[in-house]
Formats: sequence, structure tokens, C-alpha cells
Amino acid sequence: MAVVVQDIARADPALIARLGAAGVATVHEAQGRTGLMSSRLRPIQTDFAIAGSAVTISAPPGDNWMVHVAIEQLAEGDIMVLAPTAPCDMGYFGDLLATSAMARGCRALVIDAGVRDTRDLRAMGFGVWSSAISAQGTVKETLGSVNVPIVCAGALVHPGDVIVADDDGVCVVPRAQAGAVMEKAQARLDGEEAKRRRLAAGELGLDIYDMRGRLSEKGLKYV
Amino acid sequence: MAVVVQDIARADPALIARLGAAGVATVHEAQGRTGLMSSRLRPIQTDFAIAGSAVTISAPPGDNWMVHVAIEQLAEGDIMVLAPTAPCDMGYFGDLLATSAMARGCRALVIDAGVRDTRDLRAMGFGVWSSAISAQGTVKETLGSVNVPIVCAGALVHPGDVIVADDDGVCVVPRAQAGAVMEKAQARLDGEEAKRRRLAAGELGLDIYDMRGRLSEKGLKYV
Amino acid sequence: MAVVVQDIARADPALIARLGAAGVATVHEAQGRTGLMSSRLRPIQTDFAIAGSAVTISAPPGDNWMVHVAIEQLAEGDIMVLAPTAPCDMGYFGDLLATSAMARGCRALVIDAGVRDTRDLRAMGFGVWSSAISAQGTVKETLGSVNVPIVCAGALVHPGDVIVADDDGVCVVPRAQAGAVMEKAQARLDGEEAKRRRLAAGELGLDIYDMRGRLSEKGLKYV
Amino acid sequence: MAVVVQDIARADPALIARLGAAGVATVHEAQGRTGLMSSRLRPIQTDFAIAGSAVTISAPPGDNWMVHVAIEQLAEGDIMVLAPTAPCDMGYFGDLLATSAMARGCRALVIDAGVRDTRDLRAMGFGVWSSAISAQGTVKETLGSVNVPIVCAGALVHPGDVIVADDDGVCVVPRAQAGAVMEKAQARLDGEEAKRRRLAAGELGLDIYDMRGRLSEKGLKYV
Amino acid sequence: MAVVVQDIARADPALIARLGAAGVATVHEAQGRTGLMSSRLRPIQTDFAIAGSAVTISAPPGDNWMVHVAIEQLAEGDIMVLAPTAPCDMGYFGDLLATSAMARGCRALVIDAGVRDTRDLRAMGFGVWSSAISAQGTVKETLGSVNVPIVCAGALVHPGDVIVADDDGVCVVPRAQAGAVMEKAQARLDGEEAKRRRLAAGELGLDIYDMRGRLSEKGLKYV
Amino acid sequence: MAVVVQDIARADPALIARLGAAGVATVHEAQGRTGLMSSRLRPIQTDFAIAGSAVTISAPPGDNWMVHVAIEQLAEGDIMVLAPTAPCDMGYFGDLLATSAMARGCRALVIDAGVRDTRDLRAMGFGVWSSAISAQGTVKETLGSVNVPIVCAGALVHPGDVIVADDDGVCVVPRAQAGAVMEKAQARLDGEEAKRRRLAAGELGLDIYDMRGRLSEKGLKYV
Repeated sequence: MAVVVQDIARADPALIARLGAAGVATVHEAQGRTGLMSSRLRPIQTDFAIAGSAVTISAPPGDNWMVHVAIEQLAEGDIMVLAPTAPCDMGYFGDLLATSAMARGCRALVIDAGVRDTRDLRAMGFGVWSSAISAQGTVKETLGSVNVPIVCAGALVHPGDVIVADDDGVCVVPRAQAGAVMEKAQARLDGEEAKRRRLAAGELGLDIYDMRGRLSEKGLKYV
Repeated sequence: MAVVVQDIARADPALIARLGAAGVATVHEAQGRTGLMSSRLRPIQTDFAIAGSAVTISAPPGDNWMVHVAIEQLAEGDIMVLAPTAPCDMGYFGDLLATSAMARGCRALVIDAGVRDTRDLRAMGFGVWSSAISAQGTVKETLGSVNVPIVCAGALVHPGDVIVADDDGVCVVPRAQAGAVMEKAQARLDGEEAKRRRLAAGELGLDIYDMRGRLSEKGLKYV
Repeated sequence: MAVVVQDIARADPALIARLGAAGVATVHEAQGRTGLMSSRLRPIQTDFAIAGSAVTISAPPGDNWMVHVAIEQLAEGDIMVLAPTAPCDMGYFGDLLATSAMARGCRALVIDAGVRDTRDLRAMGFGVWSSAISAQGTVKETLGSVNVPIVCAGALVHPGDVIVADDDGVCVVPRAQAGAVMEKAQARLDGEEAKRRRLAAGELGLDIYDMRGRLSEKGLKYV
Repeated sequence: MAVVVQDIARADPALIARLGAAGVATVHEAQGRTGLMSSRLRPIQTDFAIAGSAVTISAPPGDNWMVHVAIEQLAEGDIMVLAPTAPCDMGYFGDLLATSAMARGCRALVIDAGVRDTRDLRAMGFGVWSSAISAQGTVKETLGSVNVPIVCAGALVHPGDVIVADDDGVCVVPRAQAGAVMEKAQARLDGEEAKRRRLAAGELGLDIYDMRGRLSEKGLKYV
Repeated sequence: MAVVVQDIARADPALIARLGAAGVATVHEAQGRTGLMSSRLRPIQTDFAIAGSAVTISAPPGDNWMVHVAIEQLAEGDIMVLAPTAPCDMGYFGDLLATSAMARGCRALVIDAGVRDTRDLRAMGFGVWSSAISAQGTVKETLGSVNVPIVCAGALVHPGDVIVADDDGVCVVPRAQAGAVMEKAQARLDGEEAKRRRLAAGELGLDIYDMRGRLSEKGLKYV
Repeated sequence: MAVVVQDIARADPALIARLGAAGVATVHEAQGRTGLMSSRLRPIQTDFAIAGSAVTISAPPGDNWMVHVAIEQLAEGDIMVLAPTAPCDMGYFGDLLATSAMARGCRALVIDAGVRDTRDLRAMGFGVWSSAISAQGTVKETLGSVNVPIVCAGALVHPGDVIVADDDGVCVVPRAQAGAVMEKAQARLDGEEAKRRRLAAGELGLDIYDMRGRLSEKGLKYV
């Protein structure tokens, strides 16, 4: 049951970068409002956005042994995604592990558990979305798995899926759909720019989206 | 049941500005410790304070249609206050709606639900106090009301009430009492400055407030 | 039952400073993973670390009278640690009390309850770790105690214990063990520096810590 | 600011009894889905339903003095509704207070705070909906008010409003609307009985409510 | 995106019954500690256990339209499993829907959201595991899907998987593994009975499981 | 650091029984409102009260090895009290361990973590107060300690202290103070009976406790 899958497919780096630039809210909309992780995951830094390929970690509660195993599997541009097999807010990850991960080209961690050394992590520019901040250390006693499908903060993640993360949270884009999702995201971005200009000029959404008739039909009264 | 009240009274802008400068803690004290919203509302920005007139929104859970309706009712200096009719942490509001609201002179949102595009909102200087941050989008299917009395995060808000918000939270001042509250707030501010100087010089609150006798009467022992 | 202990022993200031520089995660590890307060205590500021001697306060819920009493007991370098006798998120502490505490050489507060005037507190450089931010004021009606043993956020604190606090949380070091803990912390710091260099150079934790054999014995499969 | 309103209007007892029999879910629907208290209020007993006239209590956190004051204001069939002025889970109420309240004809308490002696309260048949169970006692030091409008668990309550409470939670019916709400509730009850028979016989809601066309229009696909 | 899958495979009813009798704790252990839903799901009844085939529902927050659609898909012995697409504690389900579901042979609901009419549901013997109890009603405006894979309370559920639920919570057994899991569960049950007798007779787990040597090796000291 | 203290002092069984009969609320008051555990500990059974001598367990998160060790230390009338060294809601304890504990005369467990097999535990009459119910199993890999002082759910517990637990929660009475606390508890019980009769006869607490003068002095107005 404890396995490390060594060879995973990843999406095209240019595509990943574009998804990261589009941001969580836009990407989430573009893929039909699926793939969003729970809002209990919060960034430890402000005004930071990233996207990358998921290297997944299924770890026992309070045991970070598999993080060491996972780091060997990292490639440039990867993001580690860790789901404990039971709820746990202990500090699985700190500045030494981040140093090691960055040496392999990984720039971020998404974890439904705790991290520590947060000030150092921010200073290093290593992005973290976590459900807790805790100095409480973990043990290295029990196996887990690396690069198997996991459910992290309510979202299903397969290794190699694209992780998009920013101040709004974390969204998972299935690898095979990354291109199609980016197309829809681009359409949204293009449309938004025009709308933003009209709204900034004082036009109302009620008129731009032609809502007045339907509001009236449903029975809205102005008094 | 779904109504938009178009004509609401507002407090004097100069008075509103003074209440904003006094801040939440002082204003809350000045009006007898009433009107404070729950501490589950947190600002998405740091070191930011504002006051304005409430345009209230009662919205169904997961439905932000009424925000579009409310924007048409905004005047210079207003703050939108949204209470969902059932608990909900979805992202009702993002940068496009903020662009539209700012075009009408509104500079902040208080919402007992979620918002998204938080990085953009900070960059725009649009203040937000919310109970969640979530990229999860909403629908536009069910009516609510604008400018009716609402209970938001435990506080009763009438349209046109003065909303004071800063890093400590959000406080509601009933419009008719705004002047009287500001008078009491000013008295507190005046008194605090003198006390601050004495405390900074090393005098003790025990002496300034003459507490030693009452402490002794109640039975406090020094050992 | 309501007592103020006036004469407490404190650890050596140089030792306290070294513990502060080592930080919460390292100190917590060095003393066998004990003394950590609950992660519900969060700093109101970012990138701030401190250590000091605990002046403890046991206060009734919603009553901050004992804070005034405690301030008289403060010496240079102390940190106030307040535990309410029942859960409470009201704002026990604000800028006037901080002014008074700073005048006596105290630079931080750890409180399993709420604080207010947070913007001012940050501007003053007064560090706060609290379980809530709330403008809600307290009364001065009921006695508590100062410098008695308390349980704060799940950790036992004796007056004069060393409090170490940073972005990761708060850890308590019993005064009598401060020297021994710092020795172990120093050993960790020395070891970490060498490891950090090797990890930054691309060596793997799997090899540095010689984990491969034990992983294999436990049954980890690479596929 | 601390007042006791002695003379409040109440709804007709027979009407109150009918609202209680209709239950929270039906009454809440009948009045347009308003007036529901937060689901953080839970009953301490199972399979128990009641309705009565609200005697409201605004009490300081951790201070139950006003409960003693309120008991004098109770009439046959009243329900006490207590909202603390700041969040608090201490035990405001136990078997002695319940004995006193029952002697005046009151049969239940709704409280956005804690209670104790829960086993005794159940044995006495005194109904309680609370946000906490805690043995932690309160003081009698600070005034509050009785029979003023309060916001309890997110709902606005005026003295004399009808409180309906059962295993699903607590709903407030404004006194003046009690008759109209009961009419709509009765219509729902009448309609439900017929639907229940058809559903029990195996007919589908899809057909009874004629949903198939609209589902299809919206794009639902069967595969 | 909104689909209803009409033809799903189910496990053998006798096997399902045996899994239900084994119970959540045993089944969870037998399948390698996977498939457990979050402990935020709690039963509305006491001392009740069941197992059945999952009919899955992905529903928008605050919209129970798809429950009506799902009921048509129910077969004897099924359990409905509903995951909202965003967190929501509204009451999606009550006694009328339960009446309809029971008419089709369904005896239980697992829902990461709220239910109402809980007293009636208990009286009907319809089992419910939910994350909330709330009288708050839902709308019927937006489509979802039936019998697609969902993540419910942190666990991945495919339609036709076996749901085991009792007082300890809810566990999902993938349909294809149900036989193998039951074999391992049976082995545990057989072993437990012998151990229970030895433990009841006063033998210690320390001896039965031969732990003393390993405890000593790890350094446990008796003083 | 991992020790088992084998010889602990216990209070007199008759005294323990009297404390149990007095109940948590009365005992907590009698000892000056100290020793109460957090209200996050809830009983898994209803209408059940007990008292006993604490056998304490400090256990790593997700590791129940020390429970096996502790059971050997149990004597007739003991209650196990387990505090994990980091927050954890996994199921440390089930029916097999309860069988073993009962064979040694232990009748209850207080645990700031999870338990499982709750239906069986209720059927066996084994009392449990826990912060979670979860089928999630634990490992046996890391040592902890037995019969050392611990902080459990916010209360300091020494081995041999008297644990009093009922539907209201859990309270710790330091062994050396048990006699004095029971004296005060008895005085309360004696006084309460007389008050209960007067209150049941319709006398008001306002008069029995002579509160009217002080209420008036503080400024309470009747209108």
C-alpha cells in the first residue's frame, strides 16, 4: 500500500504559467466551478501567485517521513501537495525541507496540515498554503505514499495535475483538461477587460448584463 | 418581500469622517458598547480604516444578484453591508463589482460571507471586511432586498446607519445617534491623550484611576 | 484566592535573548516537544520574534482589572501572559495599557483572549499573540491573580518562565531548564547550518539522514 | 441604559400553541424564511417542541444577574431568550433558576451562551436551546436589560414575539404577524399531508411538482 | 455538465449486510484505514447502524433540486450521499423527501450539509448522518448531477460504492473491493472475539500483543 | 522522558463517591471555580455521572501505545485521563481497550482526542468524555508517559487527583484538597435544597438573595 510512483506526466510549462497568471478565481470559473480546495487552506504570504505540477503526498498524521521521499521525485516547477490520512495541524514542513525542495526546482507547498519556520519560508520566497501554522514537530515512523491520487482539502488531486494558487486559495486543474480550461479562462479574461472599462466608466452591471427584465419578472419591487 | 428602497437618509459626511478617525474601539465604547459585529469578520487588508453610510443587502446564500442591484443605489461615501439569509462562505464579490462600486463613490464592503480577487481589491484600495475568502462563485437566480434592515454578523443595521471599520473590526452607529456618539467619542479621545502622556511617563493606571482602595476592599492580597 | 506575587525569579537576560534568537520551532524541539501553546494564538504582526520573562495573569472572563495590577509588577524584558478563567474573546488590552507596559520595559503580551487597537500596537512595536481581535471592552469588577501558575492556551506557565514567541507561535521554557534547553537548541542550530548547506547543494535528506534502508525494511515500494 | 420593561404585549395563547405544534421548519417557511436563529443553538433534550412568548434578556458576558431580574417579569407560557453582549459560553443557568422560572409558568430558555445542570433540567422537563454546556459559573456585578429588543444567535427578537423551538432549532415570529404566519403554516400543513400520502405510495416529487420540463430546459441530461 | 447516470452497478446485498454488521471501525481498519469521512458528519440518531449502495448527488449550495431527481434513481437498499459544491449548512432534506425515498427502498442519507424535521426522521427510522441540523430551506433553481463521482466530507465516493455508517461515523468501501475488505474484516472480527475474552479475564494487552520488549528497547522507564 | 510512575496516591473512595454525587457544577463552585476542563469535551452517553482517581496518560498524536501501558497501572475506581501532546481527533480507544480497563476496575475515560466503538462503550456502561468521535485508528510507534502531570483540555491534572464527570463536563479536584472541597460542596448542597423549596413555592431570587437594593444603586430602571 505504500508506494512511490516515479514517473508522472506533467502539463506544458508555458500552459501552467498562463494558468497561474489567470489566477484561482478565473481558472475555477473556467472549469465549471470544480477543483477548488476548502477555504481552510490559507497562504502564509500576501500578494503571491503561482502554478505548478502536483507531486502528491499521502502522509500519516504527525509523520513527515514521506516529504523526504517526495523531494527526490521533484522536478523544476513542481508543487508538493500533502494530505494527511487523518486531520492534523502539526508542523510537517519547515525551512530545511524548503531548502531541499528549492534545490530541486520546487517553489511551493499546499498542505492540509501545519507548517513552521513561516518567517524563513516567506524570506526564501517559498510559497505555502496550509490549514495551520504550528511549531509542533512530527515523527518519521510510518510509511505513506507519493504520487498517488489524494483528496486534499476536499479536492481530488492526481499527480501531475496543475495546481493554481494565489491569495484567494488553491484550485486543481486535471492535467488532461489544462489546455481547454486555459482557453475558457482566456475568453473570460478578454471579456473581463472590456467589462472592467465599462464599469469603471460608470455603466451598471444591471444594464451591461441586461438584468432588469428578469428582476422585474421575478417580482423585485422598487419603493 | 423582495424590495429595493431607493431613498435613504444618510448622516452628515463630516460627522462620518470624524467617526472613522475615532476608530472602532472608541466609537463602540462611546455608544455604550453596542453595535459591534462579530469578530468573525476580518479585514483583507492591514492598517486601513474607513467610515461610511450603510447600503444594506439581504441576499440568498450563494447568490450575488442583489449586489448588482445595490450598486445602482450607491452614493459617494457609501459602504455596502451584505448579510446572507443563511450562513455561506462563497465568494460574492470580486474586482469587477468593486470597479463598479468605486465608480459610484463606494469605497468598502462589509460582508458576512466570502469575497475573492483579494489581491486586486487590496491594490485598488477597496476595503473589505469579510467572514471568508473564497474563489467559489455565486449564481444570480433568487431575489433578495436592498436597503431593508438586516442583521449582519450579529449586529442590527438600518440603511443609512454609519459603518465604522478598521483593523479591530466593524461597528454600526444608528444614524440618528451619530452626533451624540461622536460627542462622547471626542470626550474619550481628549481624555485618552492626557492619560497616554501620564502612562508613557511611568505613572500607573492603579494610581491614575485610583484603584488601590477598591482592590483592597475586594480582598486582593499582595504577597 | 486573589493574590499578587511581587517577587519572582527571572532567567538571565542574555540566555533569554539567545532563546529568542533560536526561535519557537527550535526551542520547542530542544525541550522535547513540550511547552507549546495552542495554534489558536496568532500574532497580530508579521516577521516579529521576541523572548522574555513571564508575568502571569489569571483574569475573570471579560474583566481586565488585573492587567492594571500586573503592570506594576513588570520589569525590563518581561512579557505579560494572560489566561482567562473561562473562554472569552473580548478585547482586554489596547494602546493605553501597552503605553503603560512599555514605560516599564515590557515589550509583548501573550493572551488567550482578545485585544484591540491592533494598528496602534503594531505601530508602537508592541508584540501581541492573541486568540482574537475584538473591540469589545471589558469591565473592572472582579479580582484575579498575578504571578501565580496558570494554564494558557494549553501550556502550563509559572511566573518567571521564559516565553519565546515568533511567527510560528508561543513556547514556554521553565525557568530552571532555560540553560539546558538553550544548550540543546544551540546544538540543533549548529547542526542545521551544515545540513542547510548540503540540502541547498542538492543532497537529499534520504541520504543525509540515511533513510533508504529503513524505508525499504518497512515495505516502501518504488514503481 | 439598563432598563426593565415591565409591561409587554403577548400573542394569543391558542395561536402560540398552534405555532408550536406546526414546528420550526414549517413556521420558518411560512414566514418567508426569516427569523431563524443560528444552528449553533442546540437543544439539550431530544424529541421536545415548545412555543411561547419571549421575555428578552441582554446580559453582560459571564454575568447572570439579569436572569434573576427577568424571572420576576415572567408570565405563564413565557420563554426566556438571553443574548450576551459579547460571545460567552459560560453556564448562566441551572436547576435553581429553572425551578424559579417554572414556578412562574415558564417552561423553556433560549440562550446564545452556556447552561449547566443539564441532567436535572431534562428531568424537570424544562426545555433549553443553548450554544454551549458548561459548569463554569457567572458573577452578578454588572447590569443589563430585560424586555428590550435583542439580537440572539443572529435573529432580532422583540419582547412578546413568539418563540418556536424544537429539535431543528429556534425560530422567532414577530408578535403582530403571528396570526398571518399561522395561516400560511396551516396551509402548508394541509398540503403536506396530501403530498405525504402520494409520496408514501411511490409517486415521485418530479411528477407531483411537475419538474421534468424545467429540468430538461435547464439542460439536465440522463445517460 | 449536469448529468444523471441511470444505470449503476451495486455490490451483492448479502455482502453489504455483512459489512454493515462489521461496523465502521472494523471496516475502516480492514481496508487499510482509507475511505473514512470527516468526523464533522454526525448521526441524528443513537445506536443505529446501516450499510447500502451509494447513489451520489452533487448539488449546488442551498439547492436541493437534485435530491428529487436522485430519488427516482433509488433501488432497494440504497443510501443517498450528497456533497454540496461549496460548504453549506442549510436543511436540504426533511420528512417529505424521506417518505419518498423510503417508498423506493432507501433507508438512509449521508450529507455534508444540513437536514431538518429530525424528530420525524428518527421516528420514521430513516438514518441520517449530516454536518448540520437546520430548518433553513433550500431553492430549486440550479442543476447538479446524480451518480457521478463526488468527494463527500473528504472521502471519494463512486456511485455503487458500499456505504457503512454507524455511531462512529461513515466509511466508503469501493464496490470492487467489497469482498476482499469483508474477508479482512471477518478475520479481524474472529480475532477480536478471542482477544475480548482474554482481556475480560484480566490478561493485559502488553502480554497478549507481546509489547514489553519493544517498549523497553525504545527506552520506557518504570519508576 | 518516557516514564511510567507505578505508585500513585489516591483519595479515599468514600470521599470520591461523595464528590461524584455532588456533581461537576457544585464541585467546581466549591473549589473556587478552578479545575474545569474545556467544554469541547462532551460525554458520549446521557444522564451518567461518575468520579474516580486519575491515571494520567501523555500520548503522542495518533499513537495509543501508552493506553496499553496505562491499563496495567489501573486500580479499582480509577479513571484514565489522556492528553495528546498535539491536537488530534483520531480514535485512540474502543471496546477492546474498555474491556481490558473494566477488568481492572476502571469505569471511565476522559480524553482530549477521539474514541470509537461508541455504541459498544455505551452498552458496556463504560463512561467516556471526549473531544471527538472517530473510527480513525492509531499506531503504536512512539513512547509517551503514564502518571505524570498533564494539561488535559485546559486543566492541570496530577495522577491521583479526583476526576468528577457528568453531563455538564469534567472537573479535576487536586487530591490533597478533596476533603476540603467536599465540605464546601456539602454546604452548598445543604443550602441549595432550602433555596429550591423556596423558589419552587414562588419566592423570587431577587428577594431571597436581597438583590433589589444593589440593583437600584447600580442604576437599574423599571419602566
